[in-house]
Amino acid sequence: MKPLGPIPPGFTAVDGELAIGGRRVSELVAEAGQTPLFVYSRQRIADRIADLRTAMPEQLKINYAIKANSFAPVLSYVSTLVDGLDIASGGELEMVRASGFDLSRVSFAGPGKRDEELEAAIASGVTLNLESENEAERALAIAGRLGRTPRLAIRVNPDFELKGSGMKMGGGAKPFGVDAARVPALARKIVDAGCEWRGLHIFTGSQALSAEAVIDMQAKVLDCADRIAVEAGLTLPKLNMGGGFGIPYFPGDEPLDIQAIGDALTDRLELLPETLAEAELLIELGRYLVGEAGVYLTRIIDRKESYGETYLVTDGGLHHQLAASGNFGTVVRRNYPVAIATRFNAEPEEEANVVGCLCTPLDRLADKAQLPRAEVGDIVAVFCAGAYGATASPSAFLGQGPAEEVLI
Amino acid sequence: MKPLGPIPPGFTAVDGELAIGGRRVSELVAEAGQTPLFVYSRQRIADRIADLRTAMPEQLKINYAIKANSFAPVLSYVSTLVDGLDIASGGELEMVRASGFDLSRVSFAGPGKRDEELEAAIASGVTLNLESENEAERALAIAGRLGRTPRLAIRVNPDFELKGSGMKMGGGAKPFGVDAARVPALARKIVDAGCEWRGLHIFTGSQALSAEAVIDMQAKVLDCADRIAVEAGLTLPKLNMGGGFGIPYFPGDEPLDIQAIGDALTDRLELLPETLAEAELLIELGRYLVGEAGVYLTRIIDRKESYGETYLVTDGGLHHQLAASGNFGTVVRRNYPVAIATRFNAEPEEEANVVGCLCTPLDRLADKAQLPRAEVGDIVAVFCAGAYGATASPSAFLGQGPAEEVLI
Repeated sequence: MKPLGPIPPGFTAVDGELAIGGRRVSELVAEAGQTPLFVYSRQRIADRIADLRTAMPEQLKINYAIKANSFAPVLSYVSTLVDGLDIASGGELEMVRASGFDLSRVSFAGPGKRDEELEAAIASGVTLNLESENEAERALAIAGRLGRTPRLAIRVNPDFELKGSGMKMGGGAKPFGVDAARVPALARKIVDAGCEWRGLHIFTGSQALSAEAVIDMQAKVLDCADRIAVEAGLTLPKLNMGGGFGIPYFPGDEPLDIQAIGDALTDRLELLPETLAEAELLIELGRYLVGEAGVYLTRIIDRKESYGETYLVTDGGLHHQLAASGNFGTVVRRNYPVAIATRFNAEPEEEANVVGCLCTPLDRLADKAQLPRAEVGDIVAVFCAGAYGATASPSAFLGQGPAEEVLI
Repeated sequence: MKPLGPIPPGFTAVDGELAIGGRRVSELVAEAGQTPLFVYSRQRIADRIADLRTAMPEQLKINYAIKANSFAPVLSYVSTLVDGLDIASGGELEMVRASGFDLSRVSFAGPGKRDEELEAAIASGVTLNLESENEAERALAIAGRLGRTPRLAIRVNPDFELKGSGMKMGGGAKPFGVDAARVPALARKIVDAGCEWRGLHIFTGSQALSAEAVIDMQAKVLDCADRIAVEAGLTLPKLNMGGGFGIPYFPGDEPLDIQAIGDALTDRLELLPETLAEAELLIELGRYLVGEAGVYLTRIIDRKESYGETYLVTDGGLHHQLAASGNFGTVVRRNYPVAIATRFNAEPEEEANVVGCLCTPLDRLADKAQLPRAEVGDIVAVFCAGAYGATASPSAFLGQGPAEEVLI
């Protein structure tokens, strides 16, 4: 037996079935007309952001990193609840444009921005988080050609990292941002070139579950930003403090204590140095805002035995849920939170493997899980599917095609 | 320094640049109008299949598993050179139908076939490789409803595996096929039900580089098929012996000795048991036929330094080359064969990391590689990109979209 990850709180049963937004999964599937289906809950997104606003200092802005989930209805909805959006490609710029969001509240980070992407961003008034001196030169040249004043911030590769984060993105040699020591010179250069100076972006890692680690990181981010500003002889109009707020996926994971983070940050903000006194301070979150609001539903097509093990074969799989299958950024495969959605109240009574429909042993959604006995036709729910699911999986693999998505 | 995987033989330089099918990469990119670009070589596919035909016994059929690369021009071209096609989904069935291939020479394996997929296959005369007793019942019921005689084979989960294979798909509990011990009863049942009996499919693993392991596996497959046939009191009209032929990806990998495999199989075929005397024998290959015929080309957008390390940031990445980034089925990340295509003859003179354009530390195409000094605008080639590249990667990740593909 291998334990399953923790089901996010707040999911309950109606008539024995998992309900999302008060509606039974079988009803949601019938309405969508098919499985596999991603269901995203408006209410859970709203609650999450409201809780976060309550915990964080009032003046802290909250941005959404749309890479986590750019399904148009989700993007449009989240846009109404946050202060800004962060994009990572020209494709995401077009999604944000289509949503009607104010492009002056959008910033664009990404280590390999093409000239066309820089041009589209500058022409649209999007802030560029510059990743290198070379990118700064290209941006200034393109802005000159367009006759526009570019909005430029600098992404810093800091000399520290977010401890215990799932993905470290600072500390030592990295492809992201400009090494902190070289940032003051670059900041002076772009300010002197007459750009609209938009401050710094310091992103050190993601998916941390330790409040202490996030508190430590945020303190260092503020110090680092101040040191850079002092050395450059500039104040900061804006500081993107990064994100890093994780959600529990695996057995033993505990939710992040956001109140502790908010309290510590409130204290820090009372002692802000002069360079940051006028700065718009923001955190940039993706997964934390939408991850737990999504559930992936897939139907059992076959129930079979092999050498004494039970396999529940579904019509979904890693082509929609690459991370849940353990094949994206994880070294040791552990189980996500998974349940038999159509028997949500039933007690576990057997050990079963939940696999996908693909001809590859990698396609496994739950390994040796304790589950109620499920039959062909039952619906399996994979939780924590609101972020990095549909877009972060190889949907064309084996000719399967994408899952449906719905925001309720 | 970390070594790079071996560049497949036969790639040479023209005017200092990598040439594919005699054409310089810069010319191919100019014609396609963009990077990233997958280039697949008709000639290399043809040569590979011709070499295989020469090495294998004459009566052995060679099937193409289209999951390896289903780009329509590749599929159409390979179809003209092989004896049959293997599909893994209803989506792939439609691709094959669109290519005009004779559907009676197509078989369909996959552990989670939906009713609609079974129906489409039966109605089209495609052979179903049954994955379970339950699937057999569903297929018979659907065939009855359609008034069609279904073509049915059974996929066997054998009690042995392909040693040293990258992906083990037999031996012990598995979601694929029917445990060997239960196959005779199921075979009798579907024969008695009046279906068109198409024999067995025994697939034990993939990506093996040891001829000895493949020879051992093929011998066991023939024995296993015979045992099942004897016990069922049936002869086999067809035996899909699986594939498993690997290609070198990583440092130290050596090409598979196909002549040794062919010689051993020739000897075996002279001693075929009575149950297999009339059987059409075939192997089913995907990666081996097309993997080395493909090259992924991506342009360097930035060249940057961080804490003394050099990063070549490209406009491609794991959204097209998930396996090359080490995030698909590999535990320890090793380097694929990678080169600076526009300086293909130049000597290595620096250590550099080749990364993609995505905001994630997972997006790395070559780690601490010895390369000629490359500049912005140079084109990077990732070799062995003909199989499980474009379709097996999350192309929508971060809004990047798919790469171009071209068959030359």
